[in-house]
Amino acid sequence: MSEASKEKRHGLIIVNTGHGKGKTTAALGTVFRALGQGFKVAMIQFIKGGWQYGELAAAKKFENFSLEPMGKGFLKLGDGDPLPEDCALAEKTWALCADRILSEKYDLVVCDEVNYALSYGLLPVSMVLETLARKPSWVHVILTGRDAPEALLAVADLVTEMREIKHPYQKGIMAQRGIEF
Amino acid sequence: MSEASKEKRHGLIIVNTGHGKGKTTAALGTVFRALGQGFKVAMIQFIKGGWQYGELAAAKKFENFSLEPMGKGFLKLGDGDPLPEDCALAEKTWALCADRILSEKYDLVVCDEVNYALSYGLLPVSMVLETLARKPSWVHVILTGRDAPEALLAVADLVTEMREIKHPYQKGIMAQRGIEF
Repeated sequence: MSEASKEKRHGLIIVNTGHGKGKTTAALGTVFRALGQGFKVAMIQFIKGGWQYGELAAAKKFENFSLEPMGKGFLKLGDGDPLPEDCALAEKTWALCADRILSEKYDLVVCDEVNYALSYGLLPVSMVLETLARKPSWVHVILTGRDAPEALLAVADLVTEMREIKHPYQKGIMAQRGIEF
Repeated sequence: MSEASKEKRHGLIIVNTGHGKGKTTAALGTVFRALGQGFKVAMIQFIKGGWQYGELAAAKKFENFSLEPMGKGFLKLGDGDPLPEDCALAEKTWALCADRILSEKYDLVVCDEVNYALSYGLLPVSMVLETLARKPSWVHVILTGRDAPEALLAVADLVTEMREIKHPYQKGIMAQRGIEF
């Protein structure tokens, strides 16, 4: 990627939110497209901690893609306040996102399920906004997860809500390998 | 892919619709994941005819992925009835989709922007339903595009509506290479 083409680029802040499917999947699709254009891409996962996903195997095909799963599976959310260790993990994961966003080494950084961490109070939105305010102008950032806070939507360039209209669970069909994971 | 694992699989009919971004992109993300799981995937494009897209370059990394752009760019839609040549092209493109779906050679077939062809009357929905009724039980099919007809939603297992909440065009930002194409 030449320096000249970076300078002409308008780095977008993209939010995929809503309660339907396709938030992470659309981000992956954008990654696929960006890799094909020769972009350097980092994707950091806040929630999913497993290494069995199809995207991990596919990611290995691309030298210009780093996928870093930092979460520890699905957080167990109780009625009480978030656990300090979950907050610490969320903040550590954001620190990694911030490093990638500000490093000037990546064209696209995906912060997968970060909205989940924000909406559950594991991560202060101010921390995210502070990084985004300092991002290089040509860096694209995608933030996924349901219930993205209003303060994040306010600074975003592109916001899409994925709405569930019909879901196979309603018919009793289990999650399908290769499609949902 | 072993025959046994195919037989256990429940092939889903997935529809990505709505007027927001991310319908094709989410399908691409699913393709990426499916390829990583070793699936054989075919994607047929109804509308976009160009060969400059990032996904085309990325697709070349995968032997188990065939991407077939059949459309001729964006259709010019007037006030009148659809042009016979556009209907013929849409029907020819569906014939290719049907071949891929029924061939038992593909685990996932993406019919990209087919809903667009359906909603503009270029392709009869009955033709699509007839193929889907005969598809092998283990084959997943994704149909994308705005304004998916009710009759298609009725047979789908998973329907997601992508809603546009905020778009960079509203700020006067042009489409960005590597992100939107």
